[in-house]
Amino acid sequence: MTKISGGVCAPKGFMAGGIRCGIKASSPKKDLALIYSQSFCSAAAVFTKNKVKSASVILSQENIADGKLRAIIANSGNANACTGSEGMISARRMAQLAADALLISPREVAVASTGVIGVPLPINAIEENIDALKASLLNNEKGHEDALEAIMTTDTRKKDISVEIEIGGKKVRIGAMTKGSGMIHPDMATMLCFITTDASIIPSALDLSLRRAVERSFNRLTVDGDTSTNDMALVMANGEAGNPPLTESSSDYKIFCESLDYVCVSLARMMARDGEGAKKLLTVTVRGAENEESAVILAKSVASSSLVKTACFGADANWGRVLCAMGYAKADFLAEKASVSYKSEKGEIEVCREGQSAAFDEVKAKEILGEEEVEILVNLSDGNVEASVWGCDLGYDYVRINGDYRS
Amino acid sequence: MTKISGGVCAPKGFMAGGIRCGIKASSPKKDLALIYSQSFCSAAAVFTKNKVKSASVILSQENIADGKLRAIIANSGNANACTGSEGMISARRMAQLAADALLISPREVAVASTGVIGVPLPINAIEENIDALKASLLNNEKGHEDALEAIMTTDTRKKDISVEIEIGGKKVRIGAMTKGSGMIHPDMATMLCFITTDASIIPSALDLSLRRAVERSFNRLTVDGDTSTNDMALVMANGEAGNPPLTESSSDYKIFCESLDYVCVSLARMMARDGEGAKKLLTVTVRGAENEESAVILAKSVASSSLVKTACFGADANWGRVLCAMGYAKADFLAEKASVSYKSEKGEIEVCREGQSAAFDEVKAKEILGEEEVEILVNLSDGNVEASVWGCDLGYDYVRINGDYRS
Repeated sequence: MTKISGGVCAPKGFMAGGIRCGIKASSPKKDLALIYSQSFCSAAAVFTKNKVKSASVILSQENIADGKLRAIIANSGNANACTGSEGMISARRMAQLAADALLISPREVAVASTGVIGVPLPINAIEENIDALKASLLNNEKGHEDALEAIMTTDTRKKDISVEIEIGGKKVRIGAMTKGSGMIHPDMATMLCFITTDASIIPSALDLSLRRAVERSFNRLTVDGDTSTNDMALVMANGEAGNPPLTESSSDYKIFCESLDYVCVSLARMMARDGEGAKKLLTVTVRGAENEESAVILAKSVASSSLVKTACFGADANWGRVLCAMGYAKADFLAEKASVSYKSEKGEIEVCREGQSAAFDEVKAKEILGEEEVEILVNLSDGNVEASVWGCDLGYDYVRINGDYRS
Repeated sequence: MTKISGGVCAPKGFMAGGIRCGIKASSPKKDLALIYSQSFCSAAAVFTKNKVKSASVILSQENIADGKLRAIIANSGNANACTGSEGMISARRMAQLAADALLISPREVAVASTGVIGVPLPINAIEENIDALKASLLNNEKGHEDALEAIMTTDTRKKDISVEIEIGGKKVRIGAMTKGSGMIHPDMATMLCFITTDASIIPSALDLSLRRAVERSFNRLTVDGDTSTNDMALVMANGEAGNPPLTESSSDYKIFCESLDYVCVSLARMMARDGEGAKKLLTVTVRGAENEESAVILAKSVASSSLVKTACFGADANWGRVLCAMGYAKADFLAEKASVSYKSEKGEIEVCREGQSAAFDEVKAKEILGEEEVEILVNLSDGNVEASVWGCDLGYDYVRINGDYRS
């Protein structure tokens, strides 16, 4: 696997663009994105489990039911959630506008939205600018960046990746972009993720590979414990690489799955690193677990604890909060057998051994915790399984950003 | 029911005191408390559900098993949790020291601790000061305040209450104190609550009344989603009021239960109001629910949401976050039927009707949300049941307090 440039436009036959249409009324930022495949695609997606779903989620679930898509139109600045039947009409209109511009069927268009909940979507702004949006696809070397900018909200960094692998003697590319920095919690949240690939792969195999990858990446991510109304992770595969079509039983299917895992985990780590107000990427790894489920539950509880997150912000080696957070998680472990270490580029230090304080150098611990990427390592001494979860610290900036998000 | 003064010393036959023994090494604050009944007591308690339990919780669970206690010795500044077998020895030593000073059995003593996890309890400091602690009980008009000060950690306000009721023609008093402002979440957390009463009541009836009251008060409280290793709520009843002994089937049992509910709910509200770094008491009331369980689950999800809490801090009428938080709770409701209002001393305003934005005056909403006590009212239009949960906003001070708690 080689990292390459180009994001969602790296795979053959995909185009992307993004413009400002004015949904973010008071901001000069782009707010409308389009991703398009020149040929037919297999497609798969996972959506938010929140019972309150945006109209765009409901429509995209309908349109992807047959495992086929050719385009994604996405806006930021407005979630089109809690907007009633008008919201559904607007979502359908968005799909129709994109379809008319691209001369495809509206059933081939996924719609995605992100932003404030409960405000009617200004569909006129999209209607008036659909031609400009289509034009942004053409002869646009930085189309993937324009599209990425247009889906960002409180994100402070662009989060995209593209890789190249070889399948059946052919070069296959996977490209992806994501947005999301707050309202992120296991089981997806305020995140949109669009993945393109020129692999030839049947819809059921694509669906399985996406579910697997999401489980190991976006579902192991926590920023603030909230999960949103609008999440989706969506992949389109147009087959232009010319490889023999991948099925679940192809010998090369594993290569594709592992590459998709890599793409999604890389994006998940970028999202944690860019958590709202976050200064640090926090990785919580639970080792020596009896099974993966327990390891993930315990690691998520630690990564979600406000007290662990603030201690991480303050570079305070308060390991008691780590054990405490595991203690209220819904998984068994023995505190008397658990050890805790902190790790970063400055080294690794054991702070708790068998449930009690290890004699450790506080100055060294503070130095390790002072880094921008910190890992909390827990060893349960109970088995051989290991799992990691990604999160971030909780600092003043989270409060600043979310205390008045709408204005 | 009449409010009276005196806290845990208001009921007949109870004494209390508190001193500084030096567990909080770098602070001039009191850190050791004693509460004592001159006569035998029925007793009941509920304890943390965290799998990692402090030694004091384990010992107190042992000692209360027979439904009898006469004293509570409590320290702040050290949780005596994750301290291994030495921690258990220290907890037993604390009980023995109190028993020897009071000439009672160590089996009649509950032990409580609160503070940093994982640091050995400096038991010597308690040994050296046990005589001074006993002396603080005597001729001490403000003994209950001294005891209360000695269990406080990051609390900024004293939280106590006492009431008088009449049962069987006799005046009966209930007094209580609590500490806790962070690490508070449904199912008890970093809270100690000591309740005294001179009611005559059999242990099983006392136990039932306490469990009922805790369910409706401390278990409907959330500050930061963390639950601790040390929580307990404990009641001692010495019968000195001289009423006919209350049993579960006494006609006056309901009066006692309702008074205990009132005491615990009052303390829970004080704790939410004093949440770490909190500027506001946030009450979330869910009405029109099909059943109480759903109402509580939905209200807790709203009160626990970091995004709702920061919006509350910023006085931002971002009601979409309220519906969103209900959407990921594990209880059913129909967003299309739900309405949301904000309420405070400045009035009440509906911001969402049947799942969509109600046309509302943003300036008025901001004024209402600007108050120190704010209520979020959700009507599900689905039944007749109502339940409230208490929480607080999430502001900069939470981060400041918890970023470096140990130093």
